[in-house]
Amino acid sequence: MVTELISVGTEILLGNIVNTNSAYLSEKCAQLGLSVYYQTVVGDNEERMKAVIKTALDRSDVVILTGGLGPTEDDLTKEVTADVMGFPLVEDPHSRELLEAYLKQYEKNNAQRRITANNYKQAMVPEGALVLDNHNGTAPGLIMEKNGKIAVLLPGPPMEMKPMFEEEVFPYLRRLQPEIIFSQMVKICSIGESQVAEEIQDLIEEQSNPTIAPYAKTGEVHLRITAKGESEKECRKLIKPVVHELKTRFGKNIFATDEDKTLEEAVVDMLKDQGLTLALAESCTGGEIAARIVNVPGASEVFGHGFVTYSNRAKRKFLGVKKTTLKACGAVSEKCAKEMARGGCAAAKSDICLSVTGIAGPDGGTKEKPVGTVFMGCCYNDKIIAREFHFTGNRTKIREQSTAHALAFLRECMLEGVSKKE
Amino acid sequence: MVTELISVGTEILLGNIVNTNSAYLSEKCAQLGLSVYYQTVVGDNEERMKAVIKTALDRSDVVILTGGLGPTEDDLTKEVTADVMGFPLVEDPHSRELLEAYLKQYEKNNAQRRITANNYKQAMVPEGALVLDNHNGTAPGLIMEKNGKIAVLLPGPPMEMKPMFEEEVFPYLRRLQPEIIFSQMVKICSIGESQVAEEIQDLIEEQSNPTIAPYAKTGEVHLRITAKGESEKECRKLIKPVVHELKTRFGKNIFATDEDKTLEEAVVDMLKDQGLTLALAESCTGGEIAARIVNVPGASEVFGHGFVTYSNRAKRKFLGVKKTTLKACGAVSEKCAKEMARGGCAAAKSDICLSVTGIAGPDGGTKEKPVGTVFMGCCYNDKIIAREFHFTGNRTKIREQSTAHALAFLRECMLEGVSKKE
Repeated sequence: MVTELISVGTEILLGNIVNTNSAYLSEKCAQLGLSVYYQTVVGDNEERMKAVIKTALDRSDVVILTGGLGPTEDDLTKEVTADVMGFPLVEDPHSRELLEAYLKQYEKNNAQRRITANNYKQAMVPEGALVLDNHNGTAPGLIMEKNGKIAVLLPGPPMEMKPMFEEEVFPYLRRLQPEIIFSQMVKICSIGESQVAEEIQDLIEEQSNPTIAPYAKTGEVHLRITAKGESEKECRKLIKPVVHELKTRFGKNIFATDEDKTLEEAVVDMLKDQGLTLALAESCTGGEIAARIVNVPGASEVFGHGFVTYSNRAKRKFLGVKKTTLKACGAVSEKCAKEMARGGCAAAKSDICLSVTGIAGPDGGTKEKPVGTVFMGCCYNDKIIAREFHFTGNRTKIREQSTAHALAFLRECMLEGVSKKE
Repeated sequence: MVTELISVGTEILLGNIVNTNSAYLSEKCAQLGLSVYYQTVVGDNEERMKAVIKTALDRSDVVILTGGLGPTEDDLTKEVTADVMGFPLVEDPHSRELLEAYLKQYEKNNAQRRITANNYKQAMVPEGALVLDNHNGTAPGLIMEKNGKIAVLLPGPPMEMKPMFEEEVFPYLRRLQPEIIFSQMVKICSIGESQVAEEIQDLIEEQSNPTIAPYAKTGEVHLRITAKGESEKECRKLIKPVVHELKTRFGKNIFATDEDKTLEEAVVDMLKDQGLTLALAESCTGGEIAARIVNVPGASEVFGHGFVTYSNRAKRKFLGVKKTTLKACGAVSEKCAKEMARGGCAAAKSDICLSVTGIAGPDGGTKEKPVGTVFMGCCYNDKIIAREFHFTGNRTKIREQSTAHALAFLRECMLEGVSKKE
């Protein structure tokens, strides 16, 4: 089914906010086997909205609109869509009830805010529409069907839109499909995007059902395997040999086969499984690796100490990097990375320590060590290995890549038991 | 002039990448006084691209397209736009020369890659088009004019698109405007979005030239003041009293009046100006504050040591937080925040130390200290102050807000010379 996404809101057209809703919904639609042919953004303007919605309903089967469902006069998505599709608006008693309860609570917590008559326009719905409860705000979602065309209206804030989509719209759209669509993710690290593409080229060329779609992220490649079938069971059966084949080809570089699992979660899980504690000694990444580890709820079980040793003095004082090392090899060197890792283990009394030191730019590069040169060290069981990396891009990009590759490097070291001799 | 943005690329429709180009270009267009009425995304499909480009040239004066200028057969933006506007493609000798030089260099660095005939299609340009050099890739940008309509074609990768826009397209579009548009940014921290909105409501209600547009960022509010006039000088004259009025109203809470200056840069500049060194003691933010400080090139002058003390043991060992404090008040307490800040100063021998300890969730909240409770401490000149914050949202949001408010809190403390008694 041809699908179109419409985001409503002048704030997007002013560049005030980045339209992440469309990326989210596009990925979900791909997962559902819906073909998104267009994404459109239009402002809170009745005439232009009407034209855009008409065009969308002409050329697409499913139109998903986000935004413009709020209580102000500017919020027109429901009114305009109902008008274009020829539905009158009527009050929905259930929505009115939920709205009143929500607003009462809100008024209690925000003494200076008063409920206005405008608020109640949110309980008006197009006649015959499917009403989707909003558990995180006041605007209900709506699904309207007419002449084989479907319009789905969702609130704009991602915190309201996403749960509503997951809980109500995703299963609804899945039921519409003549076949079941089911997909599984395979997440890979420690191999570049082009190498992954090359290694699966034959699979992609001969694919029909299931299909494999690669998504490149910083330091990671995600492969989504999507199957169509008569039941989830049949889809799983179709997907299984493909996942098996990918496991054969990418082996331990696959860190997750679960949609939501992040690389930092995979790392934290490994630490937990092996009963290890982690310390971090960061220079150019400046705390980014620690921040990603702390992203994982419950990381405190395995991670207690991070050192951001941005100055040479800090590297010496807290990690015991030798003055002679800094003088002879510099702070950006294999030797310094190793001493940082060893010192981090000792200072934090941790089982393992990952260190990163590099030149993020824009200054500080030399002919021998250009901007983007990064050394990483890992100390574990009194063994230490180090690796040299070369990244490109601006300061932010280099640090982002360093962080992603550091997590992958740490994972590799744990897989190998850091067995290589220093 | 009515403006429309078109992003070309199936990868956006699959949700593979977030469309940040449109947000960037929308903000730039607002700055130029161009009214962006539509943003559209279309895939690499000739028929659909043709329809979308035709519609855009019908309803808008300026159409800015990004993506689809590469060397592969899928890249069709130039061909389709030239066709729709009725321009034949001819080889541009200058582009051919630049392309050959770039590819030779590339071949040298990437031994396994060979230049194919396809690459040379990038030197073909619509007859009479203005060709924009690409200093960061192979695809030149293009500007075509016909019958009062303008099409601007830019490469898709932001690292190529942005410099080309800044250097070539921005001045070009500015010249087209009957009047000069000039804008200045005023960036505010330490005050909430709604309070800022309230305090400038009268200014916004009476505004005509210049206009004030608020942009809410995490922990910051940006106000863009835009004037139209016959010269930049006239615009500056119009803007000056508004900036003056904003300075009167928001005083020291304005941290920048410069488009590109970030809050972390403002903080690093203050530290440099006052000749102070900074240490950081982070618990729930887990290194995010350090990472933002290290974002600033040259931060090493003022920042050398960051402690990510995620465990109580680390808080005790590296920052000297007392066992009794942890036992009596808990790690998330004013007392702990103060001891962390004092201990950070002592351990790093820094002039100032900022500490953050809080509950980012999803677990760990209690009735007295719900998820989102965060204490910050600042030690300076042997004086220490602390403040309690309450944030909402998920773990990521709470940590992001903690980081932004910590930078603002640090700035406030420096402004006040941390004079309050403990």
